[in-house]
Amino acid sequence: MALMVQKYGGTSVGDIERIKNVARRVIHAKNQGHQVVVVVSAMAGETNKLIRLAQQVTSSPDERELDVLVSTGEQVSIALLTIALKSMGVDAKSYLGFQIKIATDSAFGKARITGIESEKMLEDLKNGRVVVVAGFQGVDEEENITTLGRGGSDTTAVAVASALKADVCEIYTDVDGVYTTDPNVYPRARKLSRISYDEMLEMASLGAKVLQIRSVEFAKKYNVPIHVRSSFNDNPGTIVCREDEEMEKVVVSGVTYNKNEAKIEIMGVPDLPGVAARLFKPIADANIVVDMIIQTSSTEKGCADLAFTVPQSDFKKTLQILKGNIKGIGGKEILSDENIAKVSIIGVGMRSHSNVATQMFSALAKEGINIQMISTSEIKISCIIDSKYTELAVRALHDAFGLDKTTSTEEN
Amino acid sequence: MALMVQKYGGTSVGDIERIKNVARRVIHAKNQGHQVVVVVSAMAGETNKLIRLAQQVTSSPDERELDVLVSTGEQVSIALLTIALKSMGVDAKSYLGFQIKIATDSAFGKARITGIESEKMLEDLKNGRVVVVAGFQGVDEEENITTLGRGGSDTTAVAVASALKADVCEIYTDVDGVYTTDPNVYPRARKLSRISYDEMLEMASLGAKVLQIRSVEFAKKYNVPIHVRSSFNDNPGTIVCREDEEMEKVVVSGVTYNKNEAKIEIMGVPDLPGVAARLFKPIADANIVVDMIIQTSSTEKGCADLAFTVPQSDFKKTLQILKGNIKGIGGKEILSDENIAKVSIIGVGMRSHSNVATQMFSALAKEGINIQMISTSEIKISCIIDSKYTELAVRALHDAFGLDKTTSTEEN
Repeated sequence: MALMVQKYGGTSVGDIERIKNVARRVIHAKNQGHQVVVVVSAMAGETNKLIRLAQQVTSSPDERELDVLVSTGEQVSIALLTIALKSMGVDAKSYLGFQIKIATDSAFGKARITGIESEKMLEDLKNGRVVVVAGFQGVDEEENITTLGRGGSDTTAVAVASALKADVCEIYTDVDGVYTTDPNVYPRARKLSRISYDEMLEMASLGAKVLQIRSVEFAKKYNVPIHVRSSFNDNPGTIVCREDEEMEKVVVSGVTYNKNEAKIEIMGVPDLPGVAARLFKPIADANIVVDMIIQTSSTEKGCADLAFTVPQSDFKKTLQILKGNIKGIGGKEILSDENIAKVSIIGVGMRSHSNVATQMFSALAKEGINIQMISTSEIKISCIIDSKYTELAVRALHDAFGLDKTTSTEEN
Repeated sequence: MALMVQKYGGTSVGDIERIKNVARRVIHAKNQGHQVVVVVSAMAGETNKLIRLAQQVTSSPDERELDVLVSTGEQVSIALLTIALKSMGVDAKSYLGFQIKIATDSAFGKARITGIESEKMLEDLKNGRVVVVAGFQGVDEEENITTLGRGGSDTTAVAVASALKADVCEIYTDVDGVYTTDPNVYPRARKLSRISYDEMLEMASLGAKVLQIRSVEFAKKYNVPIHVRSSFNDNPGTIVCREDEEMEKVVVSGVTYNKNEAKIEIMGVPDLPGVAARLFKPIADANIVVDMIIQTSSTEKGCADLAFTVPQSDFKKTLQILKGNIKGIGGKEILSDENIAKVSIIGVGMRSHSNVATQMFSALAKEGINIQMISTSEIKISCIIDSKYTELAVRALHDAFGLDKTTSTEEN
């Protein structure tokens, strides 16, 4: 018997039939003797519908009031799910953010959870009730309604699990776990049975869209094990948890790719202190996030070449900013390339294994793939390559690090 | 400069354009120097849509959860209206039931307001803000969301006005006031400039659908003046307030009618103690509200004839109950008539004027209208007549009591 938090996303509660299905899954878990808390998102499409309503009023709706508006989506979901559970003969009770004091800061639209009161929920569970909690929402110190940003229901689920000291937080989604790479790109991709928080964070920020990054950070901070699994079958999914010795034996856990960046190069910038700052400040001021940055000596004496990547959606804006700026800095030329991709390998085992980078570069070289830029962290190596080689690179790296082979920490 | 509460119904906030219109009306009042609190209903049709969703899950949804569900309608309205106000440059803030502690009992779906915290709202008003309050909803002692029943936003508005000691509570609706009778039946009907709470209560319960009855009871209890007016023009409407000497001079303030009742007669019931109770108990147990009851001596010796009215929607059910019950009681025959109407005259002046009933009966007799049943209260006389004479009776009574003529308490 376990205390479990189950989180169902918008697709899983997308219509009345699906809500009934979720109710049946919850009842199944309860009948197996578990205590169940359910966190639900808004029905698929509802949040966008509400945002569109606000935008019919004005293009820049007030942020506090927008949160009042969009938080109704989850309110509808918890009511309907609880109605379904009760109509099936199971005692259940729904809670909104304010009712269990899901406390957050006041950053409307992207608030952070600071605490949750567990008393009511624990009392309900003790009395055999299923507890249904609205995801995505909280209240700040002044009882204003706040929302946690896209995917925020994942964070709600983890925070509730942490507050209740739950045994596990199950995140139900439309994929059945975390894979060594995108199975659409490489069918030999294998579902991981376990992955560390840090690896999951790198995977998430590098393009794997399984979990909201903040929920993983929260889970890591409070050591809440997350079980990512499918709401359409009963297969075990992937456990995201604290790393252990077994995980460290695996050098590389996954290969990710991202085709949504663009590269910009500035040639012949005077190699003087403060130049980089003057170059990047206006870009940062425009809220554009620069990813990789590389500086090399220029062929021109006393000068340097600077290369960096930005999201493709900010590409044109960045170029405009640079064109107005380049002469003041003394740069010679701007080159740009939208046809690039970033491929990355991730694994906590890298910390204790040397030579991983060399293995990666060799694997790419063997396929004739030129590496344009490289960036590394403790548990990740990323390379920028020509985007037409993306899939080839992913497969080559997956093979080179033997990711298709089951290891002791993988599913049998 | 006044502190005013304005309430707008579902039709007034039925779409984005109408919400913007309400915002303009509010700003107009504010620009005239008033402090404004706005109470809004759900957008027209929304509450029914939400109830239908719940009924797709089960025919008898849990009442607590149904309130969680339907209260989202008003939440959407306050957010959109506040977004509109702020986009027009006016500082504004929305409040849900729990945020200003609209305390109610725990009768889900038909809760009664027991108190409201005024501090936050008064602080906002002091700071020049427009306050926007969700109608229809409250929270009970355990912070469960409750709703007040159909038309409950009227009661919210009156309760907020009472808590803030507002100068007036303006209820905006699609008619521009309370009339001496239905203008569709008699074009000579005149808009009343003032009417007492008690008269309004009789008018409301007798079929005039301007205000929720409970809101008038609340206004009477806390002496909150209500101004009923149209959201489509700037005409003064009708003030509902405490009665005064001027009002008492007017014998009859209005004529109402109701075609939605049916008459049932039980002939030859033994005239013994307890018979009436045994007859009506099963009807009451089926939640059917019996209106008028009249008992007369039967032509049969030692027996009585009983006549009463029920809502037409409960007519068949009542007959079924009686048919299964009549023999046990010893009744001889059941007669029924769906083609009846109730016409009523209402006026606080009746208390101090004799002969009003005679005047009413004469007026009907003069038109050859037979009176089937009569019932009276301190400020009201109702007659059951053949429904085909309804409009004729209304006109005759309107004329007989000179309601088309302006008096000192009426509008000029």
